[in-house]
Formats: sequence, structure tokens, C-alpha cells
Amino acid sequence: MAAAKSVTACILIIGDEVLSGRTQDANLKYLAGNLSAIGIRVAEARVIADDEATIMGALNQCRAAHDYVFTTGGIGPTHDDITSASVAKAFGVELVRHPDALALLMRHYRPGDVNEARLKMADVPDGASLIANPVSSAPGFRMGNVFVLAGVPEIMRAMFDGIKHQLAGGPPIRSQSLVAYAPEGAVALPFGELQKQYPDLDMGSYPFQRLGQTGVSLVVRGTDAGRLAEAMEKLKAIVRGLGVEAEDGDGDVAGKEGSKP
Amino acid sequence: MAAAKSVTACILIIGDEVLSGRTQDANLKYLAGNLSAIGIRVAEARVIADDEATIMGALNQCRAAHDYVFTTGGIGPTHDDITSASVAKAFGVELVRHPDALALLMRHYRPGDVNEARLKMADVPDGASLIANPVSSAPGFRMGNVFVLAGVPEIMRAMFDGIKHQLAGGPPIRSQSLVAYAPEGAVALPFGELQKQYPDLDMGSYPFQRLGQTGVSLVVRGTDAGRLAEAMEKLKAIVRGLGVEAEDGDGDVAGKEGSKP
Repeated sequence: MAAAKSVTACILIIGDEVLSGRTQDANLKYLAGNLSAIGIRVAEARVIADDEATIMGALNQCRAAHDYVFTTGGIGPTHDDITSASVAKAFGVELVRHPDALALLMRHYRPGDVNEARLKMADVPDGASLIANPVSSAPGFRMGNVFVLAGVPEIMRAMFDGIKHQLAGGPPIRSQSLVAYAPEGAVALPFGELQKQYPDLDMGSYPFQRLGQTGVSLVVRGTDAGRLAEAMEKLKAIVRGLGVEAEDGDGDVAGKEGSKP
Repeated sequence: MAAAKSVTACILIIGDEVLSGRTQDANLKYLAGNLSAIGIRVAEARVIADDEATIMGALNQCRAAHDYVFTTGGIGPTHDDITSASVAKAFGVELVRHPDALALLMRHYRPGDVNEARLKMADVPDGASLIANPVSSAPGFRMGNVFVLAGVPEIMRAMFDGIKHQLAGGPPIRSQSLVAYAPEGAVALPFGELQKQYPDLDMGSYPFQRLGQTGVSLVVRGTDAGRLAEAMEKLKAIVRGLGVEAEDGDGDVAGKEGSKP
């Protein structure tokens, strides 16, 4: 598809627990929605294992290919938390104990609770700047265009909200949708024609079953509000012309319906 | 980490709606959990855009690197459903209208409801075998080691359950866990020592906050039930030795707690 592709990001979700099916990832949707809202398009996301070579490979590919990389997971105190060390290796720098991070942890823990596992959370690649963790102290960090965030959703969100102002996005990607109570196949052809008329917009269709009704959410995305409004008017006329019941969908980024069949 | 890595899979989640933050993916967890249970380790997952070159690139990388590839999404009737055509191109074969798929669709739709958009769902790469869709007829397909499934979770699950018997896994990957009501950092060092004693097992720790209590789920995964039981006994002794309250976690694949910090 077309659309403004100026500023892009890659998200790396690091964690065996997501790949084993144990844990449902809850970070991609939050990051993707919030990045879209500030004009950064998430071009790809990868879920990868807690494995040094894998993390290094994915990180070096993604940071070269995209404006920003966000990682989640693997910065805790246990032996399987190897993200920080792997990022340092990927950048070819030493892993160093950051004095400010150390001070944060020393203030957070009672003296008797300080141990080497916890102090490991003060180790960052040489040259990294810290990302505040208002929930449980142990910081994330930024290294070049790579933002290393926690995996626990509440902490990840707090970290992201703290660094959002550092990100330079393009024009925000707006999204409007129309819900048509018809099977996807009934609107597919004219919807495809409309996409051809507006190559600068991205159009997607997402079928759903709700309370026994079959419907499809027709979504139009783009950066130009005028073009978006124009296309939406044409889309409404198309759906009316088919004699199909319809209603306005959610404006801007949101997520309720299912995925593509 | 170590553990049996004999049979691996890659999952490709194809869909702009997941990358834009509009839709929460619900397929990875299901596929990963069910593949683990039959001894297939999901080594990586990627969320990629509805873009031909992107799909071809990811597919060709993954099918060479892993025993199996599963894709979800992009096989519906609309213009943004380009998975089948992209898979054909990746394999260097023609996209052809499959007679059995066509017959299924002709039986499913009333004559007046048949249109070219819907018939597109009968197009598969030359040489592919069909995967039944008991929910809404339009089939998925298998091409070599690649299984192309729907994106709508109910349909994807029905398709997967239908092809599961075709998959040759290794020994099932078992998982046991212990919930310790202590911060992750309090158990990190002895837990890391235990991992060193059992390089054939994978050990991970997943902190959580629940009803105001701080805890950590300590998970041990592996294919050898005897080694697993032995390690779990040692883990229980470690946690008892720390004077920490604990309880048995969920056996086998399941997912309740959060991700890595």
C-alpha cells in the first residue's frame, strides 16, 4: 500500500514467554497506537528469544533499516535478562554500571536487600542515557536510535510516556472507519476501486461477527485530513448504493474488531 | 538458553491493522501454545505489513531457517488481501484458481452473491494443498513447509486444529512453575545458579503484582520429565530456604502472568 512512509519504527519484543505461548503480549498494540498518533509508522515487529545472537542480529538489522527501534523485555535481575548486555554487544561497546542508575537502585532498596542480581539492572551500554522508571526504579535506556524498555506493561507504558517527547514523528497518521453490516465480499470490489483512486491513503477491511450479525469495518488511514474526509464521503455513498446498513466507526487509532481473514 | 531445539517454527502475522495498533493480535499465543504442546518450538514471530516485497522476503527467510512457517491474515476477498499472491511469488510459481476451492465457494454462496472478489479466495499457489475452513468455507492452504491460515482467530483456530496431525514435532516441551511471593531480585541469584546446573532446561522468571502482592512466577521448561521434576524439587528447596511464601504454579503451557521487566 501507499501512504506517507517517512518516519518508521521497528518493535522488538524480547521474551521466551511470549514465544512459548505462556504470555499474551500486551506491548505491541500500545506502542504501535501511540507511535501512529505522533506520526511514526511501525513498519515491523518481531518477537524474539532471550538469546544473545538473536537479539544482536535483529537489533542491528532493525536499527539500520528504521528511524527508531523499541525493545521490550529482558532488563530485569535474573539470568535470562540479557537484553542490556546484548544491546551493548550489538553496538560494539562495553556494558558499564551507570552511576545514576546505581544511585536510583541504592535509594530504592533497603541496604540488606541489595544484591548483585539487582545491581545488574544498573548496567547499560557505554554511552547510553537512562529512561526513567517511575514504577519500580530500575531504568531503561536509550542508545542511539534504540529505546530499551521494560517488558511489564505498566512499566513499559510509564517509560514510553516519559520519552515520547524525544521522538520526531511525521504528520500524525489519521484513521477513520465505517462499519457496514454486510459480508466483506459484498463490498470488496468497489472498496478496491476506491483504494485505486486514492493511492496516497491506506484502506483496509476487517470483518467481524457481533451479536450474530456479520459486518465489516472499512478503515481509511492517511496523513491528509482533507483527502481522508473526501474518501470517507465516497465510501459512505458506495455503501449506501449497495443498500447495506452502516454506521460510523471509531475515529483515529482504536481497536475493536478482529483481524484479516 | 539451551533446551531441545530440534523442531522449530516461525509465525508470520500479516496485517497493517496489527502494526497500526488498531487490532490486538490473538493468534500468536494460540499457535505458540499449541505448537509447544506437540514439540514444535516457535523460534521467532514477525508482524509484517500487507506488502508484497515484505511478505516475500520474510517468508523466504523463515521457510529456509525453520521446519515450519505459519502465516495468519491476508487471504480474504479485498484488495489488501495479498498473502496468497505473495506466497506464490515467493515460491516462484503461478497463482491458480483451485477447482476444489472454487467448488467450495460456489456451494457456500447463493448464485447472485458470487463475485470476482469472492472467487479470488479460490486462488492458491500452483501445487498447494487446501486447508479446510469449517467456519466460512474459503480455505487456507499448505505449500511445502508453509501453512497459510486466516487472520480471524476463530477461523485460524479451526484451520490449525484441522492440520495439526500433519505436523511432526519433537518430544513435547513440558513446563512447570512455582509462584514465589517475593520480588524477582530476591530469588535471581540462586535461580541463576540452578539454571547453570541444568543447561538442558530453560528457566525463566516472570514478576507480577496481584491484589497488592508482589510475586514472581519461576518457570522451568524442558522435554525430560525426570530432569524437570528434579529441578523443580531443588527450586522449591531454594525458595523455602529464602523463607519466602510459595505455591505451585500452573503446569504445562498456560499464561497468566506478565512479561519480563
